[in-house]
This record gives sequence, structure tokens and C-alpha cells, in this order.
Amino acid sequence: MTRLEVLAVEGLPEVHPGDDLAELIASHSKLESNDVVVVAQKIVSKAEGRIRRLRDVTAGEEAKRIALQLIAAPDPRVVQVVLDESVRIVRSERVLITETKHGFVCANGGVDHSNVPGDDAVSLLPDDPDASAEKLRAGLAELSGVEVGVIVSDTFGRPWRVGIGNVALGIAGVPSVFDLRGLRDDVGKDLHATVLAVADDLASAAGIVMGKTERTPVVIVRGFDGGGRHGTGRDLIRPAVEDLFR
Amino acid sequence: MTRLEVLAVEGLPEVHPGDDLAELIASHSKLESNDVVVVAQKIVSKAEGRIRRLRDVTAGEEAKRIALQLIAAPDPRVVQVVLDESVRIVRSERVLITETKHGFVCANGGVDHSNVPGDDAVSLLPDDPDASAEKLRAGLAELSGVEVGVIVSDTFGRPWRVGIGNVALGIAGVPSVFDLRGLRDDVGKDLHATVLAVADDLASAAGIVMGKTERTPVVIVRGFDGGGRHGTGRDLIRPAVEDLFR
Repeated sequence: MTRLEVLAVEGLPEVHPGDDLAELIASHSKLESNDVVVVAQKIVSKAEGRIRRLRDVTAGEEAKRIALQLIAAPDPRVVQVVLDESVRIVRSERVLITETKHGFVCANGGVDHSNVPGDDAVSLLPDDPDASAEKLRAGLAELSGVEVGVIVSDTFGRPWRVGIGNVALGIAGVPSVFDLRGLRDDVGKDLHATVLAVADDLASAAGIVMGKTERTPVVIVRGFDGGGRHGTGRDLIRPAVEDLFR
Repeated sequence: MTRLEVLAVEGLPEVHPGDDLAELIASHSKLESNDVVVVAQKIVSKAEGRIRRLRDVTAGEEAKRIALQLIAAPDPRVVQVVLDESVRIVRSERVLITETKHGFVCANGGVDHSNVPGDDAVSLLPDDPDASAEKLRAGLAELSGVEVGVIVSDTFGRPWRVGIGNVALGIAGVPSVFDLRGLRDDVGKDLHATVLAVADDLASAAGIVMGKTERTPVVIVRGFDGGGRHGTGRDLIRPAVEDLFR
């Protein structure tokens, strides 16, 4: 690969539960073969109705206790929603970091109030981001007549580094990693520990164009050569046995 | 921003200590105003002579003890070099994760044997990656006649996620983050916790084109609008007081 383009899909409307995302994206873009379509989790969650109304939530004792430990002083009902989406609390001092049902470790279990209309509403991560990506991939292939890859992305924080970056939650038709173990570098040495998280890199590249305040939840990466390999978002979740930061 | 290009700089030769990187890059590319030039740490370190020969290293007791705990069974002298580059051991089970003198938390303190000629040689991170980036930026401005930004990048692993991704160690003429705190999202809500690590995203985008086995240590990101803001690699290091994973 010597050249990529990263292109905003412009003019998308606000997404509502039940909307056909593939239809929306196909009608606002001219996809080419092997394009990687990076879609912000937020609009996938909206289309899938993965929204909760806080008026329907009752905070339990644990949620109330945790809310007091956090610098953002969240509504305890939001903490309850986070707990409902999570299987494990990783940290609950200053910020709340949990492991989600999918295995993602992230702030607030992926529960978020931004870009969700209504003071009372928060969005949840898609139930199965790989399935969301695959459904979109199949829909886009049918509507556009070309084979594309799809990444459902979200912005995650990182320990030790400031700020958030876009990562790949769900993947279809795109490799998750380039596994170079066993290959040799430019001077003939083994690359024994080199697994490139290429789907996360694609999500990050798209993240530059997505921003957060302009309505650009879909970005196309053109010119990427995945070598015909297909991965999943699950591939990018480090197994518990290798996790040194539980 | 609605469109970025990510372009490999092709045909660069092997870099040696003392080489003028700005001269090498300028003579192999046609830079445009506001290009972001992403340069792999490895060639910066080589040009700056940040190479150690293991024959000159004697492993101490701590290095020998740690080497036995690691799955890669490294030469204890390599571990000694890592300790020499580090101020703190973060983990030394299975893999060795340290905090470098700069404050980066990464595997092996950034010490690496790949893409360094000679079985006996390892590369170290640049002494001051921001200074390295600034020197390159000034040199490229002079040689090319246009103002560009420079990011010195390296691939770091991440807890909880598989694989490595490119991050920005040193920055000149490019923002480190887009700090959206205080702005409002598309539905009018405060984006109170949104600091986008845009320099890391730029490094990641370049990382897709860099690969590891083709000789592409320099990649240009064209079309990026940094709004005239300039940051440093130090901006992206999370302060110890906010670090929940020490």
C-alpha cells in the first residue's frame, strides 16, 4: 500500500431507531470495491434502538455508592445502566472503567449521553458489534454492487496516554490484525512480537475525519489492501490470561 | 476536514548514524503546505546514533532475574539496556513493561532489535522525541519551502486489546489533541470528557501505510487541518496522578 484516502460521507441525517443504515450510507456515498466503511458506534446503536431512558432506570445501592466516587458526579441511574452493561468493574475511582459483556474494557461500559437526543437518554454499545458490521457489509454489497469492508468504531480512552482514540468494535470483510510473526524485517531479523492492530488503525484514521461535533459518523477509507483476510472485533480483545492490568 | 490522503514516501535508503533525515525525506518527496510528515522512531534513532551494542553491556543481577520471568527469554543484556532507559518497572511478568525516562509506558522501554542491522545491536528511543520532531520540521521547512508538521511515531502495545498501534512520541507543528471540552455535540449536549488524541490518530493512519516489512518509515498525511495549533508528544503522556494502572 502506498496511498490511502480517508473520505467523509457528508449529508447524513440524524439516525433513529429502525433506520436502515446501509440504505442511508449507500444513498450518500459512491462506494468502490474494497472500500472500508467506518461507522461510528453511536449511529449503529441508534439504528438498533440501543438507547435507554433514565426514567425507566432505578439505581441500586452499588450504583449510588460508585457514583459518589467519580469526579464527574454522574446520575446514579447512569451508573446503574453501566453496571447493567458490564460483567466486571476494572476501576471505580475518579472514573468508572468496566469490562462490558462483549469483553471490551472501556470507560462507562460504552454507555454515553453525547449525541443522543433527549436529556433522559443514553446510548449503549451494540449487542453484537461484529453482527452489526456484517449486516451492514451485506446490505452495502447488495445496494452498491461492490464488496466493501465495514468497521463499527468507538472512541476509547487509554491508560498512560491522554485523550481518546477510535478503535474497532465490530469488523466485517476487513482483517483485524496483520500478524507478522514469523516474517522477517528489512534487515532479515524475525519480527517475533509484531501483530499490527490494523482495524484499530483504520478506525483511528477515520476518527480524524469523524471529529465529534460535525455530523460525520461515517468515513470511507479507500485504497486499503487487506489481502483478502477477514477478522472480527473479538479478535482484538486481549484474552484474560494475557491481561496484566485487571 | 472531509478528505485526507495518506501517502508513502518511497525509495528511502537504509538510514545510518549521522544521516540528515530532513535532507533524505525532502529529496524523496514533494511536500505541500500543511502536510503532516510521520516518521518512524526507528530511523530517527538510527540517524541520531541511539543504538547500543550488546557487547558493550554487562547485565546486572536485576536484569538477569527479570529475564527469567519473561516468555521471550531475552538476552539479559537487552533487559539491562531496557532498565538503563527506564525509571520504573510497570510489569515484569511474561512481558517487560516500563516507564521510560520520557514518561512513556511501553514494552521493553522502547528498546528494540528489529530493523537494526547487526545481531548485536538494539535501538533506543530518541533522547527527546519532541526535539527530534522540531529539528526535522525546521529542516523540512527550509529544504522544501513549505510549512509542514512532523510526528515521530512508534508502535506501542495496549492493555486489554490485541496487537500494537502507532502513537506519537514527538510532535512539531501539529496539535497533540483536539480538546472539545466545553463545546457542544450535534444535539446540543456538553462534550465534557472529549479530548481527541489527534496526533496518535495521525500516527495510526500513517502506520497502516508504514507496515513493518516494507521499507516505508516515512508517510505523509495530506489534507489535515490542525487549526494552527501546535502540541508536543509530552502532552499525550497521562500525568501520574491520573494514572489508575501503575
